[in-house]
Amino acid sequence: MTSKYADDGLALHTDLYQINMAEAYWADGVHNRKAVFELFFRKLPFGNGYAIFAGLERVLDFLREFRFSDSDLMYLQEELGYKEDFINYLREVRFTGDVYSMVEGELVFANEPIIRIEAPLVEAQLIETALLNIVNYQTLIATKASRIKQIVKTDTVMEFGTRRAQEMDAAIWGARAAVIGGLEATSNVRAGKKFGIPVAGTHAHSLVQAYKSEYEAFHAYAKRHKDCVFLVDTYNTLKIGVPTAIQVAKELGDKINFIGIRLDSGDIAFLSKEARRMLDEAGFTEAKIVVSNDLDEYTILNLKAQGAKVDMWGIGTKLITAYDQPALGAVYKIVSIESDEGVMEDTIKISSTTEKVTTPGRKKLYRIIDRENGKAEGDYITMFDEDPTHEQRLKMFHPVHTFVSKFVTNFDAKDLHTKVIENGQVIYTNPTLFEMRDYANTNLELLWDEYKRSLNPEEYPVDLSQKCWDNKMRNIQEVQEMVDRMHYT
Amino acid sequence: MTSKYADDGLALHTDLYQINMAEAYWADGVHNRKAVFELFFRKLPFGNGYAIFAGLERVLDFLREFRFSDSDLMYLQEELGYKEDFINYLREVRFTGDVYSMVEGELVFANEPIIRIEAPLVEAQLIETALLNIVNYQTLIATKASRIKQIVKTDTVMEFGTRRAQEMDAAIWGARAAVIGGLEATSNVRAGKKFGIPVAGTHAHSLVQAYKSEYEAFHAYAKRHKDCVFLVDTYNTLKIGVPTAIQVAKELGDKINFIGIRLDSGDIAFLSKEARRMLDEAGFTEAKIVVSNDLDEYTILNLKAQGAKVDMWGIGTKLITAYDQPALGAVYKIVSIESDEGVMEDTIKISSTTEKVTTPGRKKLYRIIDRENGKAEGDYITMFDEDPTHEQRLKMFHPVHTFVSKFVTNFDAKDLHTKVIENGQVIYTNPTLFEMRDYANTNLELLWDEYKRSLNPEEYPVDLSQKCWDNKMRNIQEVQEMVDRMHYT
Repeated sequence: MTSKYADDGLALHTDLYQINMAEAYWADGVHNRKAVFELFFRKLPFGNGYAIFAGLERVLDFLREFRFSDSDLMYLQEELGYKEDFINYLREVRFTGDVYSMVEGELVFANEPIIRIEAPLVEAQLIETALLNIVNYQTLIATKASRIKQIVKTDTVMEFGTRRAQEMDAAIWGARAAVIGGLEATSNVRAGKKFGIPVAGTHAHSLVQAYKSEYEAFHAYAKRHKDCVFLVDTYNTLKIGVPTAIQVAKELGDKINFIGIRLDSGDIAFLSKEARRMLDEAGFTEAKIVVSNDLDEYTILNLKAQGAKVDMWGIGTKLITAYDQPALGAVYKIVSIESDEGVMEDTIKISSTTEKVTTPGRKKLYRIIDRENGKAEGDYITMFDEDPTHEQRLKMFHPVHTFVSKFVTNFDAKDLHTKVIENGQVIYTNPTLFEMRDYANTNLELLWDEYKRSLNPEEYPVDLSQKCWDNKMRNIQEVQEMVDRMHYT
Repeated sequence: MTSKYADDGLALHTDLYQINMAEAYWADGVHNRKAVFELFFRKLPFGNGYAIFAGLERVLDFLREFRFSDSDLMYLQEELGYKEDFINYLREVRFTGDVYSMVEGELVFANEPIIRIEAPLVEAQLIETALLNIVNYQTLIATKASRIKQIVKTDTVMEFGTRRAQEMDAAIWGARAAVIGGLEATSNVRAGKKFGIPVAGTHAHSLVQAYKSEYEAFHAYAKRHKDCVFLVDTYNTLKIGVPTAIQVAKELGDKINFIGIRLDSGDIAFLSKEARRMLDEAGFTEAKIVVSNDLDEYTILNLKAQGAKVDMWGIGTKLITAYDQPALGAVYKIVSIESDEGVMEDTIKISSTTEKVTTPGRKKLYRIIDRENGKAEGDYITMFDEDPTHEQRLKMFHPVHTFVSKFVTNFDAKDLHTKVIENGQVIYTNPTLFEMRDYANTNLELLWDEYKRSLNPEEYPVDLSQKCWDNKMRNIQEVQEMVDRMHYT
C-alpha cells in the first residue's frame, strides 16, 4: 500500500495537536508572540547518577530544514481538511528563533534545562515532538553506554545491537549516541559510513554452518581477511571450537593477524577462563577473547567478579534498546510568553503530581566547580538575569532534604548553555563524535565517584537560585488564587 | 560533522560481519550456492500467548531496492579497505532469491518459521540484519497493541508515543504496527500521511499556558476547530478544568462538536468518575472522556476494575517502546545449504542452551483448524515435501510435555506461508493496513480464550512432524559424531 503522498520531509513528524494548536494561535493572531520553552527530564534513567546529553546535531539539522513540503500541505488539506488560508500560512513557516543548548557529551541531571527555545509561539510549538523524539533516545543510549563503560573501564566495548534495535533510525542514531557515551565501535556499517564510527565484526555461526566445519570455515575466512576473530561456539566451544581456532592460527602463522576468538553462548565465565588457558598454552598469550551474549553492565560486573577472561565486549539488545528502561521521559514546557502588552510573562503548569509542576521563567544553568579540587559541587539554575560567576559565596541546598545546605566559595560557575541558533541560523559547529566522547570523559572527571557508581549513587545537587525559587512560588500562588477565584454553578 | 558519504541507501544497514562473510564466500566461490534461511523467534514477548506478525511490507521494499550505492562502495573501499575486485562484485549484487512469508496480521508462535529465504548464500547472508531489525520491532509493537486491545475491547485506542519512541523510524513504523495489532489512530501526522492511518489529537497544556486560562484557550481553540476535546488538567481538573470545559461547551453550543475532555495526570479512576458525573449533570451525557497518562494493558485493567469512566485511551511510551520487553529476539538461521555436489543438505547449530539448537531443513508451517468448532488446535511444522492437508488423523504433541498428545481428525491444514518474492521479483500485493488488522482479528477468533488472556495464557501447541523431528535428531547425532571424531593435541 503505497501512499499517494511522498515521505519527503520531517515537518509532519509531530503530533497532530501541535498542528491544531498552531492553527488556533494563528487564527487568534497570537502565533508570533515570543515564547520560551525548555526541554528537560524529571528523572535520571537506570537509577544512574548522571545522564549524558546527546542529540543536538540532529536537532540542528531538523530545525535548519524545518518546512512543510508541498506533499505535506496537500495531505493536510486533502485528507485532514485544513483550510487553504492556514495551509498557505504553513507553507511559509520556518524556524526563525534562537536556541540555547548544552553541547553533546555534557553531563545532565534531572530538571535541568537542556535546550531552551526562544521563538515565535507557533514555531516553538510545531517543533516540540521531533525535538523530544531525538533528544530522548540519544540521551538515553549515551547514558546507558556510559554506565557500561564505567564498569568495563579500559576494555574495548562495541555496539552490536542493530538486529534488535527499534527500527533503523534507532540502530544508527543509537550507535552514534553509544560512541558519545564512551563506546569504541559499532557493527552497523551504515552508522560507520554516516558518522565515521569504527566498525567491527568478523563472522557468524552461519559461516561455520555453511561449511559444516569450523576448520574449513576459518580457513575460508582467512583466505581473504588478515584480521581474524574466530567464532568458536557453533558446535562445542572447548572441545572443537577453541582447538580449531588454535589449529588454524598455527597453520596460517604470519599469513593472518590472529586477533582472537569470540564466545556468543554458554557459561561465559567458565568458557572464557578455559579458552584463555588453552590459548595461553598454545602460545597465543596476546590473543583476545571477545564476548557477545545478551550483555549489559550487570552481567559484565558479574562476569568480572567471577574472574571471566574477557578483553572485548560486544553489547547488543540491552544497550540499543536501553532494555531496563527503554524511554527517557524528557518533556518540553513553555516557561514564558509575551503578553497582550508585549511584555514577557512567566507561565507555570500545576499538577497534583508535585514533580510535574514546572519551574517558570527564562533560566540559565551553571555548573559550580570548586577551584581547589576541580570537582563539581552541584548545578545551579538561575533566572536569566542572574550571574553567579562573580558571587563570593553560594548557598547550595541538598536536592531532596533542602534543610541541609552548604556554602561554596572559591568556585567557577560554568554556563552550560551555548547559543547554537540565532534568528533561525545555525551558528554552532558540531565537534567530531570523538571530541564529544572526550568531552564527556573530561566532564566525568569533574564528578565525585559517589555520583558515578552504577548502584545507588548519591544524588548530585541541582539547586534553584533563591530568585528562581521565589519566582516559582509566586507563580504557584497566582494560579492558586486564580483557581480560588473561579466559581462555576 | 557531515560525512563525505551520502546516506543514500539501506544495503549497508547491516552488521560488518555480513560483508566479511560475503567476501569469504565470494573469494571461495561458494557464494552462489543455494541456501535456505528461516526467520523465527524463540519466545513470545510480554508473556503473551501469541504474537502478531508485522513488517513484511517494509521487508519487501528493502529487498526490492537492495543494492550497494556508489557511495556505499566508495566507503567500503576507501575507509574499510575492501579490495576493488570484491567491490566490483558487490556493485552487481541484487536480491534474486525466493521468499516465503506469513502475511502481516498472522498469529505467530515461538519457533515458527515466519519468513523463509531461498537464495544464493551471499544474498541471504547480506540481508539478514535488516530483516531482523524490521520484523523484530514491528512484530513486537503489533503484539503489544493487540494485548492492549484485548483489555480495552471496543473502546477506541490511539497511539500517542512519538516523543518517547526510539528515534523517528520507531515512531512511524510503530504507529503502523499498532494499527495492525488493533489500534484505531495515531497522533503522528507523518505516519498518517505515509500509511493512511487516522490521526488524532487536539491540544496540549501549552495552549492553556500560552493563554494562562483554560476559558480563553478553549475558546481560542474552538474558533477554528469544530471537533473539540478540551484538556482539563493544566491547573486543577475538577475545580476549574472540567467546569470550564462544560461552560465553554454550553456557550458555544452547536457551533462546535464537543467531543469531550482529556485527562493526562492525577488519579484517573477518581477524576474520570467525577468528570463523568459533572458532564452528565450538565447534560453532556454523550461527551467522551479521553485518558493519556503512561498507560498500558496493566494500568487499563486496573482502571477498569476501579470503575474508571474512560471512553478513549491514548497510549504513549509503554506501547511505542514495548516498555516491559523492548526487544523481540527473532533470529535468522541457515537450515539448508547446497553441497559441493550440488545437493541440498540440512545444517544445524548446536548450543549448550538447548532452546538455541536450530531445527534443520526447509520446512513448511500449517495451522490445524478443527472443522467442527472452527478453532485452531495447534500449528504443525513439516518438512517441505510433507502435506498434512490430506491426512485423516494428525498426532499433536503438547509443546512442553511431549508425552501428552492428542489426535486431531476432521481438520483443515492451512499453509501459513505465501510466496511473496520469486527470483527477486515481488509477486505479492500488500493489503491495506485495515485489511491486515481485520485479518489479525479474524485470526484471533480462531484461538481459544485460554491462549488470549494477558496473564499466564496456556501454551499454544506448535508441533514438529515426526519426519521433521527425526531429521533434527539425525542432524544432532551427526554433529555429535563429528565432535567425537575430532582430536587436537
